[in-house]
Amino acid sequence: MTFTAHQKRQAAQAQYADGLELCPARQLLEAISSKWVTLVMLELADGELRHSELRRRIPGASQKMLTSTLRSLERDGLVTRLLTLSVPVRTDYELTPLGHSLLGVIHGLKEWADENMGQVEEARGGYDRARESAG
Amino acid sequence: MTFTAHQKRQAAQAQYADGLELCPARQLLEAISSKWVTLVMLELADGELRHSELRRRIPGASQKMLTSTLRSLERDGLVTRLLTLSVPVRTDYELTPLGHSLLGVIHGLKEWADENMGQVEEARGGYDRARESAG
Repeated sequence: MTFTAHQKRQAAQAQYADGLELCPARQLLEAISSKWVTLVMLELADGELRHSELRRRIPGASQKMLTSTLRSLERDGLVTRLLTLSVPVRTDYELTPLGHSLLGVIHGLKEWADENMGQVEEARGGYDRARESAG
Repeated sequence: MTFTAHQKRQAAQAQYADGLELCPARQLLEAISSKWVTLVMLELADGELRHSELRRRIPGASQKMLTSTLRSLERDGLVTRLLTLSVPVRTDYELTPLGHSLLGVIHGLKEWADENMGQVEEARGGYDRARESAG
């Protein structure tokens, strides 16, 4: 019996998914290695924010992406959703203590980007010039 | 003149894109906040790897995703591509010193995930039970 590339890929992915179930910490690492998680967590660093305020501050995120990111952060215990029973209902989000501990690591990523941007831009310039002269 | 929600969103996204050009460090932060960057960097922690070996170790990544992640890491000066002029040509990847400095921060994310997985699973259980009893 032979398998197509597509079938082999599906089998590898199924195996990968099985492996992930066995390794929840890796799954968690993948979940927190996300641009939207980084941006939402950094916006919540200084205190609670309304859903609409988060949308305004992260306009690159679609409503759907922002909602699913917040739901996943809430489910993981990183963010608390605060409901105010006004009309209309007001929803705020704030970091939990666990969220603050993750924020510390995310701050490390942000500091790295701030400190090394110059070197990265230099590398990009060199890469682009090399490709231009090769092309 | 009135704008539809779609037009407003497009304007906000254009403004966001303009803002990003002015803030390359934030753009870099978004680029490194990526599951594929995290997984590739961690696999390269112990030394150079062939392209095919990276594929085997990260089967969840499509060929296209892995190639574009590696190209972006190479352009940013985080990874070096080593060509061996054999038949067929062999391609290896290894972290640069700049890549090793980012790896240090990514290790922080991994350690956080390993250390806090228990608390996250507890939070998930509570969240799911609350929704079950509410639903």
